[in-house]
Amino acid sequence: MGMIGGGRGAFIGAVHRMAAGIDGQIELVAGALDVNPEIAILSGQDLYLNPERNYGTYQEMIEKESKLPEGERIDFVSIVTPNHVHYDPARLALENGFHVVCEKPMTFSYDEAVALEKLVQDTGLVFALTHTYTGYPMIKQAREMLQSGMFGTIRKVVVEYPQGWLSTPLEATGQQQASWRTDPKRSGRAGSVGDIGTHAENLAETITGLKITELCADVSTFVEGRLLDDDANVLIRFDNGAKGVLHVSQVSAGEENPINIRVYGEKGGIQWHQHDPNTMYVKWLDKPMEVYRTGTGYMGSMAQAHTRTPSGHPEGYLEAFGNIYRNFAKVVQARIDGREPDPEFLDFPTVHDGVRGMRFIDAVIESGGKNASWVKM
Amino acid sequence: MGMIGGGRGAFIGAVHRMAAGIDGQIELVAGALDVNPEIAILSGQDLYLNPERNYGTYQEMIEKESKLPEGERIDFVSIVTPNHVHYDPARLALENGFHVVCEKPMTFSYDEAVALEKLVQDTGLVFALTHTYTGYPMIKQAREMLQSGMFGTIRKVVVEYPQGWLSTPLEATGQQQASWRTDPKRSGRAGSVGDIGTHAENLAETITGLKITELCADVSTFVEGRLLDDDANVLIRFDNGAKGVLHVSQVSAGEENPINIRVYGEKGGIQWHQHDPNTMYVKWLDKPMEVYRTGTGYMGSMAQAHTRTPSGHPEGYLEAFGNIYRNFAKVVQARIDGREPDPEFLDFPTVHDGVRGMRFIDAVIESGGKNASWVKM
Amino acid sequence: MGMIGGGRGAFIGAVHRMAAGIDGQIELVAGALDVNPEIAILSGQDLYLNPERNYGTYQEMIEKESKLPEGERIDFVSIVTPNHVHYDPARLALENGFHVVCEKPMTFSYDEAVALEKLVQDTGLVFALTHTYTGYPMIKQAREMLQSGMFGTIRKVVVEYPQGWLSTPLEATGQQQASWRTDPKRSGRAGSVGDIGTHAENLAETITGLKITELCADVSTFVEGRLLDDDANVLIRFDNGAKGVLHVSQVSAGEENPINIRVYGEKGGIQWHQHDPNTMYVKWLDKPMEVYRTGTGYMGSMAQAHTRTPSGHPEGYLEAFGNIYRNFAKVVQARIDGREPDPEFLDFPTVHDGVRGMRFIDAVIESGGKNASWVKM
Amino acid sequence: MGMIGGGRGAFIGAVHRMAAGIDGQIELVAGALDVNPEIAILSGQDLYLNPERNYGTYQEMIEKESKLPEGERIDFVSIVTPNHVHYDPARLALENGFHVVCEKPMTFSYDEAVALEKLVQDTGLVFALTHTYTGYPMIKQAREMLQSGMFGTIRKVVVEYPQGWLSTPLEATGQQQASWRTDPKRSGRAGSVGDIGTHAENLAETITGLKITELCADVSTFVEGRLLDDDANVLIRFDNGAKGVLHVSQVSAGEENPINIRVYGEKGGIQWHQHDPNTMYVKWLDKPMEVYRTGTGYMGSMAQAHTRTPSGHPEGYLEAFGNIYRNFAKVVQARIDGREPDPEFLDFPTVHDGVRGMRFIDAVIESGGKNASWVKM
Repeated sequence: MGMIGGGRGAFIGAVHRMAAGIDGQIELVAGALDVNPEIAILSGQDLYLNPERNYGTYQEMIEKESKLPEGERIDFVSIVTPNHVHYDPARLALENGFHVVCEKPMTFSYDEAVALEKLVQDTGLVFALTHTYTGYPMIKQAREMLQSGMFGTIRKVVVEYPQGWLSTPLEATGQQQASWRTDPKRSGRAGSVGDIGTHAENLAETITGLKITELCADVSTFVEGRLLDDDANVLIRFDNGAKGVLHVSQVSAGEENPINIRVYGEKGGIQWHQHDPNTMYVKWLDKPMEVYRTGTGYMGSMAQAHTRTPSGHPEGYLEAFGNIYRNFAKVVQARIDGREPDPEFLDFPTVHDGVRGMRFIDAVIESGGKNASWVKM
Repeated sequence: MGMIGGGRGAFIGAVHRMAAGIDGQIELVAGALDVNPEIAILSGQDLYLNPERNYGTYQEMIEKESKLPEGERIDFVSIVTPNHVHYDPARLALENGFHVVCEKPMTFSYDEAVALEKLVQDTGLVFALTHTYTGYPMIKQAREMLQSGMFGTIRKVVVEYPQGWLSTPLEATGQQQASWRTDPKRSGRAGSVGDIGTHAENLAETITGLKITELCADVSTFVEGRLLDDDANVLIRFDNGAKGVLHVSQVSAGEENPINIRVYGEKGGIQWHQHDPNTMYVKWLDKPMEVYRTGTGYMGSMAQAHTRTPSGHPEGYLEAFGNIYRNFAKVVQARIDGREPDPEFLDFPTVHDGVRGMRFIDAVIESGGKNASWVKM
Repeated sequence: MGMIGGGRGAFIGAVHRMAAGIDGQIELVAGALDVNPEIAILSGQDLYLNPERNYGTYQEMIEKESKLPEGERIDFVSIVTPNHVHYDPARLALENGFHVVCEKPMTFSYDEAVALEKLVQDTGLVFALTHTYTGYPMIKQAREMLQSGMFGTIRKVVVEYPQGWLSTPLEATGQQQASWRTDPKRSGRAGSVGDIGTHAENLAETITGLKITELCADVSTFVEGRLLDDDANVLIRFDNGAKGVLHVSQVSAGEENPINIRVYGEKGGIQWHQHDPNTMYVKWLDKPMEVYRTGTGYMGSMAQAHTRTPSGHPEGYLEAFGNIYRNFAKVVQARIDGREPDPEFLDFPTVHDGVRGMRFIDAVIESGGKNASWVKM
Repeated sequence: MGMIGGGRGAFIGAVHRMAAGIDGQIELVAGALDVNPEIAILSGQDLYLNPERNYGTYQEMIEKESKLPEGERIDFVSIVTPNHVHYDPARLALENGFHVVCEKPMTFSYDEAVALEKLVQDTGLVFALTHTYTGYPMIKQAREMLQSGMFGTIRKVVVEYPQGWLSTPLEATGQQQASWRTDPKRSGRAGSVGDIGTHAENLAETITGLKITELCADVSTFVEGRLLDDDANVLIRFDNGAKGVLHVSQVSAGEENPINIRVYGEKGGIQWHQHDPNTMYVKWLDKPMEVYRTGTGYMGSMAQAHTRTPSGHPEGYLEAFGNIYRNFAKVVQARIDGREPDPEFLDFPTVHDGVRGMRFIDAVIESGGKNASWVKM
């Protein structure tokens, strides 16, 4: 693995490295860890990168690695930069034959997303988008149960992602995470809607198997002087006639990261809450609610395949993240070995999810700009 | 107290009687307990009503009671009928000098609500609307804290009221509660929006002290053949600039009655959940969440005045309901005694809340009818 | 109903009155509300008792009421005094033909308890002991499920009742509730063990149908100068071979009143927590935990018969208490009417529970006095 | 790292490898992964061990590794075998200059534990015992707060560790985990008491800083034919006068792994539950309970130093385990570098905890054998 971004001062880079390392199958061997070449090099030294593969720029990394003999060069790049530096390195990597792991939202603009989708299809390379939450084993279970039809037709979805960390003008303090996320030049058209709204959208569509067809969004910026949205309340409609609510916020003071989803069908439904990710509440019209737990014998095969420890040993965010890396790596390895990957590993967010997310951002921002009118997705 | 409605087959009448009785200060002495005079009489016999005051119709009750000597006649009527039989008995009672307790939504139509408001103002009589949830002591606490400004300006409100009991066409089985609530001739323009949406609206406005100024509602009927809405997702905006989401449902299969509200200000906020009504979560930007509990020494005076037992002895729905009756009765008694009521008792939903609720119903249904456009409230 | 104790400054008397009043079938018509006749009279005036039936002493009340014509006199007395004033009024009431409701622990000493049991048996009168917690509908459900054998043989019971309100020497401030509970002359041999330990013992034996056969208790007094125990940790063994732990405390700072019980059988078990009394967790070896909720259609008939509202409308402590009063009153009424009571009402703690509780107190205190040796019960 | 045990069919070996790998600083380079040399070799091949360092026996591994040049040989061994194969490999490793990570309970017998303690002291090598639960950041926080005196003198400790997985005679099916844990020849004198009781004991002593001075244990075997205990209820007394209850079980059907601890001081206390390890409830006599969460700014420095992600991103069992490995590795590295380790890394269970655990096992089993008499620890 060669990492792009994730050096000093970064947050998500270290998460990627831990997630990639958890199963002992992926090794960080190269990096261009910052947009500033000097900091990139220093950051690579922090991580004891081989100096020869500790690059100042991603262009240099991709160029030099692509010239290394097969088997020596990196198999894939992991892009953990702010949004405006996703497309270019992804394109360059794909054009040079490297598989790609990329942070979400996938690109800076919808057009970039479409172009990237085409490039992935043309090159036939493997592309994973790190919508971490769908890596949780319980999300696999939710998806399996909801799509089995056991609850009847899905009628309603409530998905919410409230955070509170941007309740104050944190970007004015120079805090790095806040700064780029609230900067239209680095984040794109959206603030909270891109940063966490796409997670909510991806989670809802992934577990239900439904597509949002239109939405109506009340998009707000509560903190004075902030350049992008920090809150959005969205009415959503799905392709099967289901309705729903999606709301996200970064000014819900006191909230941490409790992405939460409820799906209701005719006969029952599910509720899952990221703060307690190993638990899912399964509700029924006429019998007691059941509490599903990961690591148990009654879990479905996909959930079991994405769990590392027995029930009662909590797994968390890094393990969910690790599932995306592991599956991606298994598919890449199968590709290298010239065989079909095991179907259980063909399970991670793809470039198509990324296009969908960028379309969601555009639709929400467009709707918000028209005083919350309905916009097709 | 003379009760109108609440006889055989009714649900809420018995709740009113228990709630009124809990403090030992209100006695049911007369009734016209069903629209069918025969059933009314039988129902009164079930309750051992004095045969002379067990009336066949509310008209008869009000007429005869009003002719009894002061001190012998009922002090007030309690109207627990379906929505289409709220206005007429309320009007008649007020015109004959009786104070009134009335179920929500207050009337069948907004016009009736306005007329009733005028009548209450003209007569100077006491009128209480049984929005039960605002009777909970913790709701008093939430109101006090939110309106104190301790959380800064309120930015966001999320209020939800999902039920599942109408997930099937229960009205087709003749079930009495389902039948009238889904019947436009008895329920009014709205189904779920009137039955539980007004609770959500009232709760949000009561605790924040803010007013909803406009809303955008996606109103649905999921059960085939049903004549009124059974689900609604609503974007709301408040008069101080706060935004919010209000969603209600009677087809959220597996949900009981978990009305839930979250309010976020600049520095923190609160969360309250009716299933655990003695607990409130108080969240802060930069310190641990606090768990407030009723019956404790740190609760404010209004919460304490509406709590009957020490902390750890759960109080519930009937006690909250009882608080409305107790306060109403205390104010009526003060009126009878010719003195000002203690301010702590001047705390129950009034005819103005009722007008507001009817306006809410109209706005939501109007917005829903226009494919979820914004409607002023 | 004639009440003995429960006047000014009392806590539990008001609870009894609300509980008795909740179903509208029991009326407080007489009282001897304090040991001090003057305060007794003033307390009765507070409650608007008929002056002729507002007595200075319980002896006077029992004597005078017993001379009233049948149908006019009270049907039963409710004894809500400190422990040392249970036996005498109960005996006098029974000897004069009155049924009795009595607070727990039943008497001051085990000998009194045995004598009272004999008197109840000899007179054939109805006697209810207010172990409130067994009045909860979910406890009926737990009892039914555990005794059905659906979990196999019961192996382990963990019951705990931690409170924190006596963490400081509150009795030194003159606080009335603390004062008598820590006074050997009024409370008896035990402090926390009598006040709340008997609740825990009664709950465990009631729902399992098992009997504690021996116990080993580490009894402590943590607050300096306190004359009775304020904490006890007890190993228990049951007559079927099950083992368990029972621990109670009044110095568990920060705890309110969270009596909690877990019972494990071969195939699964239950957990119930008084702070959320409408919920029971049902655990299974090999399938998801189920969350039972009162007011639902799947609850057993006894639980349903002791629930007043639909699911999702929380009932609490007063309703559980009210169930004891209602059942007692129904049985008394059947006795008055000369008919057999409906079996569903023959369900409240009796004089035998009271004897058992007093034996428990003696056994715990004896064991504690012998450095936690095993004592047979 | 060279691993002893943890090959095919093992459970905890893989956990150790993931935990050791999570921070990217420890590499598995050698192993003797099974007691059967053939299976050992096959297991090493599964993990792509270098064939030259994939050993058939731990003796061979230690011998050969010790002859490798410094810098090439392993720095430490990790012993993840059943209890009867802890002491010999640990001794051999220490005698050959290798640092040691060892599974709990530390040895087969108390005598072995004492011998090992002496050997660690004599060699000056680093020894870590994997009592995983003390690796959680919230446990660091609990320890800091409890030992700060902010709650006053500690009075009561309730620690419980109920599991249900041995509710049936699972060992009779040949299940590997059940088989050795219930076999006196491999597990030692104790079953549940050694396997999970020592975790409970270690947790209680670690966070309070107190020592258990004596205990009284009711030890049971519920499953017929089982050779070791599967349940124990223990009264405990601490060196400062605090009292407590410790109960463990492997026949609490339906329980997963919910190790739970509550500590009460004069002014308040804490509760922590492993199923939700990022949360701690802090209770107070006279103010609202606080909910502490890892990853927040108000956490103490030690908790922060053991957390990898921001609040709201759940960390779990593997991260807690990883903290032990990371700290151990940091201290080993400092030793190799000839410098003092950073104090924040000097925080993992040591050989002294192991001796204490073995003493606990002996005391509980001795007490149980004498019908639950008090035994000094």
